Amino acid sequence: MKITHIEHLGIAVKSLETAIPYYEEVLGLKCYAIEEVAEQKVKTAFFQVGQTKIELLESTDPEGPVGKFIEKKGEGIHHLAFAAEGLQSSLDFLAEKGVTLIDKSPRKGAEGLNIAFLHPKSTFGVLTELCEKPGCC
Amino acid sequence: MKITHIEHLGIAVKSLETAIPYYEEVLGLKCYAIEEVAEQKVKTAFFQVGQTKIELLESTDPEGPVGKFIEKKGEGIHHLAFAAEGLQSSLDFLAEKGVTLIDKSPRKGAEGLNIAFLHPKSTFGVLTELCEKPGCC
Repeated sequence: MKITHIEHLGIAVKSLETAIPYYEEVLGLKCYAIEEVAEQKVKTAFFQVGQTKIELLESTDPEGPVGKFIEKKGEGIHHLAFAAEGLQSSLDFLAEKGVTLIDKSPRKGAEGLNIAFLHPKSTFGVLTELCEKPGCC
Repeated sequence: MKITHIEHLGIAVKSLETAIPYYEEVLGLKCYAIEEVAEQKVKTAFFQVGQTKIELLESTDPEGPVGKFIEKKGEGIHHLAFAAEGLQSSLDFLAEKGVTLIDKSPRKGAEGLNIAFLHPKSTFGVLTELCEKPGCC
């Protein structure tokens, strides 16, 4: 298992339309892409900050994971995504170590990455995502 | 206001002693420093992940900010810290833009950095810290 960097940070917001101007005009970051991820019931907006991206997440369905998160906890940081080399072997290693996997094998996420989530109950409260570029490793 | 990268991500944990082995032995990251920040009533453990640090935060006082956070929300991501060039001028700019500042001028944080916090009520739910190395800009 090799983590190289923080790939992105997922932040749940009620509305991209109202949050994007804060990130652009106040923080001075540039939104370079907006993408809907139907499977996750979210619309996402991406900002590059050094080596890491900020991924704003607006729910498209109150019953989706981000909709439920906002209802329970309000807007805020939703998940932490690491870039990991060898995603399937990393998941196998984590399962052996007793980590509860939400995804036992990689699936497609935003920006065409292969992704998998780890359950926060076994990661000290942090909903954790592992990401890998397709075709890598 | 110029943000260059994510300086660190603060993660609240109940116990460094139990959380550090997860970050080291499971995620494969290396704890390179443990430091107490008496003013913030926390003990911190640092891990470098690419350009960004993870800062685990264990409360040393249930009435401190991290103690209260864990009581209310449980363990999890506590704050997002950007490296910003020109900290005082950034704070002045943010105040002009209507952002609520927790710190109107920089103070000392962990690792000798000058830091200031922005209130999550004006940053779409994200407790946000700005950091700058002393003597910079």
